[in-house]
Amino acid sequence: MENFVYCCPTRIVFGKGTIPQLRDLVPSDQHVLITYGGGSIKKNGVYDQVREAFSDHKVSEFGGIEPNPVYETLMKAVEVVKSEGVGFLLAVGGGSTLDGTKFIAAAARYEAGDPWDILSAGGKIESAVPMGTVLTLPATGSEMNAVAVISRESSQEKLAFVSEAVAPKFSILDPETTYSLPENQVRNGVVDAFVHVTEQYLTYPARGTLQDRQAEGILLSLIEEGPRTLKDMKDYDARANFMWCATQALNGLIGCGVPGDFATHMIGHELTAFFGLAHAESLAVVLPSLLRHEKDGKRDKLIQFAKRVWGVTDGSEDEIIEAGVRKTEEFFRSLGMPTRLSEFDVSPDEAADRVKERFTARGTKLGEKQAIGPEEAAEILRASG
Amino acid sequence: MENFVYCCPTRIVFGKGTIPQLRDLVPSDQHVLITYGGGSIKKNGVYDQVREAFSDHKVSEFGGIEPNPVYETLMKAVEVVKSEGVGFLLAVGGGSTLDGTKFIAAAARYEAGDPWDILSAGGKIESAVPMGTVLTLPATGSEMNAVAVISRESSQEKLAFVSEAVAPKFSILDPETTYSLPENQVRNGVVDAFVHVTEQYLTYPARGTLQDRQAEGILLSLIEEGPRTLKDMKDYDARANFMWCATQALNGLIGCGVPGDFATHMIGHELTAFFGLAHAESLAVVLPSLLRHEKDGKRDKLIQFAKRVWGVTDGSEDEIIEAGVRKTEEFFRSLGMPTRLSEFDVSPDEAADRVKERFTARGTKLGEKQAIGPEEAAEILRASG
Repeated sequence: MENFVYCCPTRIVFGKGTIPQLRDLVPSDQHVLITYGGGSIKKNGVYDQVREAFSDHKVSEFGGIEPNPVYETLMKAVEVVKSEGVGFLLAVGGGSTLDGTKFIAAAARYEAGDPWDILSAGGKIESAVPMGTVLTLPATGSEMNAVAVISRESSQEKLAFVSEAVAPKFSILDPETTYSLPENQVRNGVVDAFVHVTEQYLTYPARGTLQDRQAEGILLSLIEEGPRTLKDMKDYDARANFMWCATQALNGLIGCGVPGDFATHMIGHELTAFFGLAHAESLAVVLPSLLRHEKDGKRDKLIQFAKRVWGVTDGSEDEIIEAGVRKTEEFFRSLGMPTRLSEFDVSPDEAADRVKERFTARGTKLGEKQAIGPEEAAEILRASG
Repeated sequence: MENFVYCCPTRIVFGKGTIPQLRDLVPSDQHVLITYGGGSIKKNGVYDQVREAFSDHKVSEFGGIEPNPVYETLMKAVEVVKSEGVGFLLAVGGGSTLDGTKFIAAAARYEAGDPWDILSAGGKIESAVPMGTVLTLPATGSEMNAVAVISRESSQEKLAFVSEAVAPKFSILDPETTYSLPENQVRNGVVDAFVHVTEQYLTYPARGTLQDRQAEGILLSLIEEGPRTLKDMKDYDARANFMWCATQALNGLIGCGVPGDFATHMIGHELTAFFGLAHAESLAVVLPSLLRHEKDGKRDKLIQFAKRVWGVTDGSEDEIIEAGVRKTEEFFRSLGMPTRLSEFDVSPDEAADRVKERFTARGTKLGEKQAIGPEEAAEILRASG
């Protein structure tokens, strides 16, 4: 096991009817900016619950944060924070709203230069506006971590930053707020969470005995509860488990002391940037192809995955590995998720060429042993057609 | 799944050679009181590493905190904190030192009356002296939770309190510091952590699908790595996994949204108070007997436990349950842990009578459905002989 630091201070308030607790979670002397996305929270009652909880607070709003939140939009919110003296940010929505709000929180206090540097040049974040969240779309884990991914329209880039300063002070997770989600967003959330786990689990053995079990526990739970969320859109316990799995998948815990390989996300981000695939769609396309491509480097863990998560018992090592990958692909498809690039009318060869060109320009090397460079990424995409 | 709040803000600094990081973890303008137990830290080099890290800090010391820390001793440390203007407490040792230091932290700032009220009368803790820990004995989970258990000599009582104010700001977990532990302390730690998990897992099904998997993951890891810690006292990865399992077993995570049954601990505390059994020894005696006694109330989870944790496949429900309990008992014994009260020269009948008397006086009812009263506790103890 490798040395690690784990710090996850976000207070999770989980369950039915918890939104009114906002009243006490945010100091009443703070001017709150509520941030949200396309307005679904105004249709499903969440917005009204939030406003009601803040009846004694001074409140402003900033709506319209896009899926894959856009730098240009977020900078408008930064202006609001500065001009109105906002002291607390409350992000209401899914991972994009939460990630965007993390950037707003950091950029509003960033004095060292152009806030884009936070994303492109590792600009150091000294402080941030405190923030909390009301999560309505389980998927990204943003509600309990210090990571955000932001896009820039002008350059078709999608970049991440990490800072403890933007870890939410609290996150309210009420599974009932997810009842109104369209099926494809639930499907996307299950796949996103699943891939977050495999990226911290399917590397090489590092004797993270407990971490492996914790990762497998999330995968097994997603396999059990994911289909239930789609079968009965008001199965509270299915929603609750799905929501908690998605949070646990990327709050740092299962990654403690073990290597990670976020190549699936990094290649997927390019498919979103170039071709507009939803985030989880890009992951479902890349993961199976990547696991087959990296079969040798990940051999021991892929066998463990096939056996412990998918119950595969028979066959040669290669057959066991292939069975595990195939079952993963079948699981995604059973949720209604396409797993081939051609299903999105994207040419695998074009995707391979464009990603290769960008990774070459950036000198990108991915994977737990930096074995996935531009050419390997292109091979993975060509095989994902 | 039940509603829950989860907040676990302690920064975990885990791994080899991490003690020097104390220098930066504690503000250099703070007067630090180092608390410890019987002095083993002076023999194994931990004390020297801590003092070296604090070469620029103002430091005082308070040693001699007992196993099952004693109120009367801790109140002497409270006097030191007050008279010397201590601003930070660093507990160096095992769960007893950590628990004792949590009480010191709270009592030093307790203005509402007699600090004993914190334990006996739910005295509200408004603030506490900030504290950190260097853990040298994995077992209790105190390094990452807000709980402490304190004894009082004058009344033979052992009582707990919970307050977020005493959650450690950080805990340093260096598995190498455990190399010098005597075998029985390692054995005790494995059993203590194991029972912490079963107490949050072996109740009734609450559709905590993920929490069940997380609990099972800790148990499976303890079963795999526990014996390795005893076989090779310098197997770093075994120590690291054991240490991380013990922390995860009682940091609140696996208890989120599911019922708990801490009857094993509560009955065990009395065996310690009356007969001097080590904490884990008392648990190993009580748990198997309690699980058999509560076979019907815990039926579904005991079957799940036997199947998923112990791999039991065949037999009637009762046979499967008994196989799971028997394998648990065999596991404890394989670590060198006695599991019968008579092995400690304690009369089961006497233990039953004394515990029954005390529980009757206190009106104690334990278990996830409050089904374990004085008579049931006595039956459990009589059957544990």
